[in-house]
This record gives sequence, C-alpha cells and structure tokens, in this order.
Amino acid sequence: METPVSTGATASDDLPFDVFARACPSRETLEHVTGRWGGLTLGALHEGPRRFNELRRRVDGVSEKMLSQTLHALERDGLVHREAQATNPPRVDYELTPMGHQVAERLLTLIHFLEDGMPQVLAARQTYDEARGAL
Amino acid sequence: METPVSTGATASDDLPFDVFARACPSRETLEHVTGRWGGLTLGALHEGPRRFNELRRRVDGVSEKMLSQTLHALERDGLVHREAQATNPPRVDYELTPMGHQVAERLLTLIHFLEDGMPQVLAARQTYDEARGAL
Repeated sequence: METPVSTGATASDDLPFDVFARACPSRETLEHVTGRWGGLTLGALHEGPRRFNELRRRVDGVSEKMLSQTLHALERDGLVHREAQATNPPRVDYELTPMGHQVAERLLTLIHFLEDGMPQVLAARQTYDEARGAL
Repeated sequence: METPVSTGATASDDLPFDVFARACPSRETLEHVTGRWGGLTLGALHEGPRRFNELRRRVDGVSEKMLSQTLHALERDGLVHREAQATNPPRVDYELTPMGHQVAERLLTLIHFLEDGMPQVLAARQTYDEARGAL
C-alpha cells in the first residue's frame, strides 16, 4: 500500500493505492483477478500457454463471451499476453506475463487453501443450516 | 486439492475438491471469499472485530443489503463469527474465525501485491488503449 498514485488514476496523487477506496483503480484490477471467471482463467493459464478453446474447456461453465471479456480485461491490465501466430489457419495463444504469473501464484495459494479447507467449510454450513432449522 | 469430497457435496465422492469443476462447492466458497464485497469484508475484519456500521464505512461503496448478504455467506462458510452482546441497546460484533484469518491472510497477500503493482497495471492499460487508438 506504499506506492503513490502516479498515472491516469481517479484517486488523488497523494494517496497510496487502496482497494478499500471505491475510486481506487486497484479495486477494479482486484475484481478482474478475483471475479467469477478471472481467477479461474489465471489459474488455468498458470498451467501453461493455452488456446481459447482449451481455456474454455478448462474453465468449466464459462461462456465464449465471458471468457473473451475476461481475457481482454486481463490483457489490458498487463497480466495476460495474447500471441497471434502467423500460421494457416491463424492460431492465437494466451499466456501469463511475468506479473500475471506472480498474481496467479498468490491466487493459487488462496485457492488451494480453500480446496483443502472444504471439509471444514461444509461442516460449518451444515451446523449453520441446522441451527436455522433448514434441514 | 488432495482432500476427497465427503459431506453434502454435489461432486462425486471420489473426486478431490476442484474449483475448476463447476459443480464443486469449493467454487462457491471461492466466490464468497473473492466476490465483489467478500474480499473487502474479510480484509476489513482482518484488522479486528467490527460492528456492522463500522464495516459499512470501511468497505467504501457497499450497500447495507449487500454487506448483510456478504456477512451471512461468510458466516455460513465458517469464516466469520457473529457475536450478539446482551447489552442494551443490543450490540453485534463480527470477527474472523481462525480459518477466516488464514483465508484473509492469503487474500491480503494478493491484495497488497496488486496495490504495489498498480503503476505497472496502469502503464499496461495506457499502452493497450494507445495501441487501439482509444486516446
């Protein structure tokens, strides 16, 4: 939270980037990274460069339109690189940039912790629902 | 990703929890944790127990309804504990559970990395927009 805002930001020049402030552009990037599809797309690309349809299969449930929007937002933020190969038929690969890799690693740490903790989460849900007579 | 599904899950009993599978309950918990307000709420509670209105001020831009829904989802997942004090007027505190703390720490690692990386993100956006003649 130490870096001052310096370029094209909506926050004041004196303020550090702060996701808690609604006008801070870091909140938008956090949403790209952790949004419904952004996190899974970064996670999938952490496994290696992928073509669009490969990503669509890996990110189970995403529509073509949403994956396309997600990739554009991540590319604009400098986290994903789009590489069009001059082949016939043309081939487009998506891969993480170095910063995208660092973001994906931190996100995957969180994801793996949640996956490992799911038995505890499911037990908590059951207790919560039973206390409210939902069962 | 090692723990087998064991309780009330929609995935098969033989499969590990996997956020990439759309039916896996871990994907829902990931969304509670990283959703538009869930992440900021966990981050705010990492600073200490808070009352509802304190949280509402800290999570700049959240509505009363959305904060209430967010807290219920996190409480049901066992990440937030709701403590009603028997005072007059009644007072309700929200605080992280031990697992909620561990989740919040991993999430804050990601958030701080993004905040520190924002100059790079803003530069990438400028390059992207200029290449597309948007300026």
